[in-house]
Amino acid sequence: MKIKLFLIFLFIPFVFIFGKNNLSDPLPAWNEGKTKSAIIDFVKSVTDKSSPMYVKPYDRIATFDNDGTLWCEQPTIQLVYTFARVKEMYPSHPEWKNEKIFQAIMDGDKAYIEEDYAAGGKGLMQVLEATNTGMTVETFQNEVLNFFKTAEHPKYKVSYTKVYYVPMLELINYLKENEFEVFICSGGGMDFMRAVSDEIYGIPTQNVIGSFGKSEFEIKDGTPEVVKMPELILINDKAGKPVGIDYIIGRKPIFSAGNVRTGGDIAMNTYCQSNKLPSIQLMVNHDDPVREFEYGEKGNESLDASAKNGWNVVSMKNDWKKIFEFE
Amino acid sequence: MKIKLFLIFLFIPFVFIFGKNNLSDPLPAWNEGKTKSAIIDFVKSVTDKSSPMYVKPYDRIATFDNDGTLWCEQPTIQLVYTFARVKEMYPSHPEWKNEKIFQAIMDGDKAYIEEDYAAGGKGLMQVLEATNTGMTVETFQNEVLNFFKTAEHPKYKVSYTKVYYVPMLELINYLKENEFEVFICSGGGMDFMRAVSDEIYGIPTQNVIGSFGKSEFEIKDGTPEVVKMPELILINDKAGKPVGIDYIIGRKPIFSAGNVRTGGDIAMNTYCQSNKLPSIQLMVNHDDPVREFEYGEKGNESLDASAKNGWNVVSMKNDWKKIFEFE
Repeated sequence: MKIKLFLIFLFIPFVFIFGKNNLSDPLPAWNEGKTKSAIIDFVKSVTDKSSPMYVKPYDRIATFDNDGTLWCEQPTIQLVYTFARVKEMYPSHPEWKNEKIFQAIMDGDKAYIEEDYAAGGKGLMQVLEATNTGMTVETFQNEVLNFFKTAEHPKYKVSYTKVYYVPMLELINYLKENEFEVFICSGGGMDFMRAVSDEIYGIPTQNVIGSFGKSEFEIKDGTPEVVKMPELILINDKAGKPVGIDYIIGRKPIFSAGNVRTGGDIAMNTYCQSNKLPSIQLMVNHDDPVREFEYGEKGNESLDASAKNGWNVVSMKNDWKKIFEFE
Repeated sequence: MKIKLFLIFLFIPFVFIFGKNNLSDPLPAWNEGKTKSAIIDFVKSVTDKSSPMYVKPYDRIATFDNDGTLWCEQPTIQLVYTFARVKEMYPSHPEWKNEKIFQAIMDGDKAYIEEDYAAGGKGLMQVLEATNTGMTVETFQNEVLNFFKTAEHPKYKVSYTKVYYVPMLELINYLKENEFEVFICSGGGMDFMRAVSDEIYGIPTQNVIGSFGKSEFEIKDGTPEVVKMPELILINDKAGKPVGIDYIIGRKPIFSAGNVRTGGDIAMNTYCQSNKLPSIQLMVNHDDPVREFEYGEKGNESLDASAKNGWNVVSMKNDWKKIFEFE
């Protein structure tokens, strides 16, 4: 018995010394393969002082798209929130009875909503204005938190706070452990994601980039507050993403990850790849109809750009051992 | 001899254990007094888990104005830069010959420049547009870095990178050591300060808030770049500061510091003080005509607000043992 204990005692320091880098797997929810190796090789190279690819911690900036890259975007969660708010607010807004878009939301008239979206989304912008602006940031975020307390994903029957992808959360933590500064770079509302970014991903508000509008400082009943105005400043999608990254971070990332659906992350990955320092880009492909959803892109732009530029396409079906914590 | 060595050996752990908090002075360039005590007491309270004032690291956000708070603002450095650029660019801009404001800068006609400023600064805005926009962020920042390489402060005859206040740099480092996330919140241009914030203060670009304008993503000759457009989005001064803080950080600070001159930091300190968590506010007063400059504020708003709200007025003359490293 004593010898056994002694052997364990002897072994502990070795696990401690070598465990982190050699024995344990930093990305256990990822299947072995080209993508996982590319990520680990990149991180090892840029953190190894003796490597020609070494990048000092100051420049280790990573940006992740959110919808469809970090969590499930079927359905788009901020849109579910917005429609739920319309239903809650409807009784006190009799003027909405004469607005087709509000009626369509109340009646669940998907065809009309999609028609509006296809025609430029004028009605939907009006809905976003009515539900996502005209209040203090604090009030808005309290409403968002209330939504997350009770709302459930229609397919998985869990809170929307649970539909994040386990492999991506692992990746975020792996990058943080390697002294990366990790940012969310979402096409969705900046204030919306900031309400839950720390709880879900451990990412603080200041590391969340998103679409945002004009705000004004007001002192209401003695309380100083920042109030959200209807005027949009930045749609943090497509060519807006490098602009959002420049506003919030002020430097190019060396790691970026987006997903296939609307070509929304091509500009971000292009911007990242133009970094003079070594860089890596990921493009998540939704090809798992069983565990998640299967959907592509009309013009195939994101996959074409990935092939052309050597970005790493992440197959949810093949690269991810586990997708959700609740599986 | 052996006994002496043993005593030293015994003493080391005590220095190690007690040194940081009790024996060494975290703010040696500050004179003992009310202001220094207020800062240290605050930091000790919010970092002491057993204190009712304890604030978890996540919420330890600090915001510092820059001009006149972190570095000397006589003259305003970005304005010196801008005028120097006008002189450099003048030969290739024959159209400026017909513009009074450009002529005034070339001729050193201070009266005309001040007149323009007093009348709303329409001419000066035109100058800022011509010199600070219409190029990529990278090109702009390279020009800023070039300026800092050679330009000298007229009074101190040192590089402008050396006119930071030693006591404030100590304070920034003291807060960082106590797990504060420290931000610059400048009325000046965000891209201007980001060019030198890490070098001077050890503050990364993403922790710099400032005035900023519209930008656009462009691919020029195959290189993806963010280009600065003339349209202003936020003047990060007065009521603009809480808005800038909300855009870049997304949460209220618990520590804020500004200075007396134009009332530019009253809104920031008010916003900070409205935090539900314990908070502290500083207001630097330029009352040292010998070592720095002596200037106040026409309406005395910043000192009045400090007295009314219990903000700590920092007397450069009395509170600071040393102002500049080069003294």
